[in-house]
Amino acid sequence: MNTNMRGKQSFILPTPVVITHWASVAGKKEKEGPLSNRFDITDEDTLFGQKTWEQGEKRMQQLALQTLMKKAALRPSDLGVVFSGDLLNQCIGSSFTLRNTGVPHVGLYGACSTMAESLMMAAMCVGGGFSDKVVAMTSSHFASSERQYRFPLGYGGQRTPTAQWTVTGSGAALVQRCGSGPRIDAATIGTVTDLGIKDANNMGAAMAPAAFATIKAHFEDLQRTADDFDLIITGDLGAVGKELLLQLAIQEGIQLGGKLVDCGCMVFDLGKQDVHSGGSGCGCSAITLCGDLLDKLNRGKWKHILFCGTGALLSPTSTQQNLPIPGVCHAVSILGGR
Amino acid sequence: MNTNMRGKQSFILPTPVVITHWASVAGKKEKEGPLSNRFDITDEDTLFGQKTWEQGEKRMQQLALQTLMKKAALRPSDLGVVFSGDLLNQCIGSSFTLRNTGVPHVGLYGACSTMAESLMMAAMCVGGGFSDKVVAMTSSHFASSERQYRFPLGYGGQRTPTAQWTVTGSGAALVQRCGSGPRIDAATIGTVTDLGIKDANNMGAAMAPAAFATIKAHFEDLQRTADDFDLIITGDLGAVGKELLLQLAIQEGIQLGGKLVDCGCMVFDLGKQDVHSGGSGCGCSAITLCGDLLDKLNRGKWKHILFCGTGALLSPTSTQQNLPIPGVCHAVSILGGR
Repeated sequence: MNTNMRGKQSFILPTPVVITHWASVAGKKEKEGPLSNRFDITDEDTLFGQKTWEQGEKRMQQLALQTLMKKAALRPSDLGVVFSGDLLNQCIGSSFTLRNTGVPHVGLYGACSTMAESLMMAAMCVGGGFSDKVVAMTSSHFASSERQYRFPLGYGGQRTPTAQWTVTGSGAALVQRCGSGPRIDAATIGTVTDLGIKDANNMGAAMAPAAFATIKAHFEDLQRTADDFDLIITGDLGAVGKELLLQLAIQEGIQLGGKLVDCGCMVFDLGKQDVHSGGSGCGCSAITLCGDLLDKLNRGKWKHILFCGTGALLSPTSTQQNLPIPGVCHAVSILGGR
Repeated sequence: MNTNMRGKQSFILPTPVVITHWASVAGKKEKEGPLSNRFDITDEDTLFGQKTWEQGEKRMQQLALQTLMKKAALRPSDLGVVFSGDLLNQCIGSSFTLRNTGVPHVGLYGACSTMAESLMMAAMCVGGGFSDKVVAMTSSHFASSERQYRFPLGYGGQRTPTAQWTVTGSGAALVQRCGSGPRIDAATIGTVTDLGIKDANNMGAAMAPAAFATIKAHFEDLQRTADDFDLIITGDLGAVGKELLLQLAIQEGIQLGGKLVDCGCMVFDLGKQDVHSGGSGCGCSAITLCGDLLDKLNRGKWKHILFCGTGALLSPTSTQQNLPIPGVCHAVSILGGR
C-alpha cells in the first residue's frame, strides 16, 4: 500500500518534514514595501553588483543560498539536493547559481509557483528518505522579466490596471528530516488549468482558476476545510486575481472563511507603490514565505497555513501565437514551529 | 535512518519500481535513421498537423501520452503525476500538453537531460509511496529549437562540424510500483558542471564533464563499476562529446570497459544523414530510450544499463552575454525486464 497518497492529487507525510532555516534577498522597491525590514539582505542596486539583470538575479539566488547555509551552519556540499527554478528562459538564474558548487540539482519549471513546487518536491524527497538536507529555492527580477516577457524597459510602455509588478527577490528554504521549525505535513500537486484568458497583462485572472482547483482538491483529498487553517495564502494572484478566486469559491460553494490572503497584495503597498494589481513572479511568494510567513509560523503566530504557489505558464512565443495562458497552483500545507 | 540515500548524490530503491509501458513519436529524419521502424508514431509533416512548430512539438507529446495510455489501458485521469519538461522557453511544449487534462503536473527543466531527470523523479515519487502511476515525458523539435537557440531556419546558416542536430521526437514512460517490465533500482542526481566551454555549436564538449562527473559519482556512491552494466548510455554527447568523455575517463582512471554508447550517435546515421556530430535535444535520449532501449531491456537483450541524460544549461541570453555553458547529467540505473 502507498501510505502517502491521498485522494487524486495530494500526499501526506505521517512524519512531517521540517523547514529548519530560510533566507530571503530582495530589491529596493520590495524594501520600500510593507515587509521592508523582514528580508535578510536588500540592495539598492538593481544589478546586485553584476553586469546584467540576469546575472543580478543569479547573484540574488547565490546570496539567498549563502545566507541560508550560514544560518544553518552548513556548507553547500552538505546538501543532498537543491530543487530550484526561475522565470528566465532555460532557468539560467538557477543553473548558474549552482554552477560548479558540486551540489546535486533538480531543475524545475513551474513559473511563479516555483517556491511551492520546490518545497513540495523537497518534502517528497526528504519524506521519502531520499535525502535529509534539501533546499527549495527560486528567484525573479523585475527588469529581467519585463524585457523577456513584455517590452524593453527603455521603451517606457504604459501598464494596464490589471498588470502586476514582478518582484525582485529570491527565497531559499532548507528542508530536513529532523530539527525544529515549521513543518510540512501534506501537499497537493496542481493540474494545468486554463479558462481561456489570453491577456499577458492579466495573469491573476489566468491563475485564479488553477488556484481554486488546487485548494478544492486539497480540501477534498485530505478532508479538510478552511477551518483547518489560519491562512490560505496564494502566491501572486494580485488584487484582481484574488477577487476572481473569491468569486469562483462562492460560485462553487467552497467556503474560504475569510482566510484568503495573497503574497502579491502583501509584498507591496498597492495604494502607494504604483504596482497596479500587486506583486508577481517566483520571488513574490518566495520572499513573502522566507521573509515573513515562516518566521511567524515559527514564532507561533499561526498554527497552520496553506501556501499555494500560483504560476502562469505562458511564454512570449505562446503569447505571439495567440494561445491562452494556462495556470498551475501547487499547495503546501505548513504547520507552526515547535 | 534514510534507507534510500547512497553516498553523496545517489539513491537506491530496495524494491525497484517498474517501467511498465513506454511510447515514442518521431519526425521524418528520425524515421530515416537507424532506429527507423522502432517508433510508435512517425509523421512526414514537421508541423504534426499544427500551425506552428511549437504547437507541433506539443502535438508530439500529446501523441506520446495518448499512445502510452492506450498501451497501458489507462486514462490520463488515472495518473498520479506527470513529470515533464522541454527545451522551449517556459517549457510550453509540456504545459500545453497537459492543459485541462486534470493530470497533476510537476514541470521540470533539465535541458536535454529531461528524460533521465523525469524518470529519476518518477522513481523517487513511486518509490517513496507518493503515487503508484507516474509518467515521465519530454520532447524536442529541430525547427522550434533552431529558431529559439540559434538562427531562423530561413537564414540558412552554415553548421560547424561540432554542431549537433536536435531530434524531433517525444518519449513517454509509465512508472508503476507493480507490474512487469524494466525496473529502476537506483539513480544519481547530477551537479551543474562547467569547464568553461562557450561555443553553443559544441554542446557535446560542454556536457561531457557533467556526464563524467555523474558516472563517476554513480560508481562511487553505489560501489559499482562498468562491469555491472551491459551499456552505459549518454543522452546526446554526439561523436565529439563522447570522445571527450572517453578521454576524461582515461585521464581520471575510470574504466568504462567499452560499454559507452551515446543516443546522439544511435538515433542518426552520422555518416549519411548530415547531422555532423550527432543527435541532440530532449527528444534524442527520449526516443532512443522509449523507442529502442526499453524494448531491448524488456526482451532480455541487456540485463542492466545506466541511462545518463545529458543537458546543456545555456540560454540564448547567456550566450549573448558571453557566459560559459554549464552541463548537467542525471543517471538512472535500469534493470532488464521480468
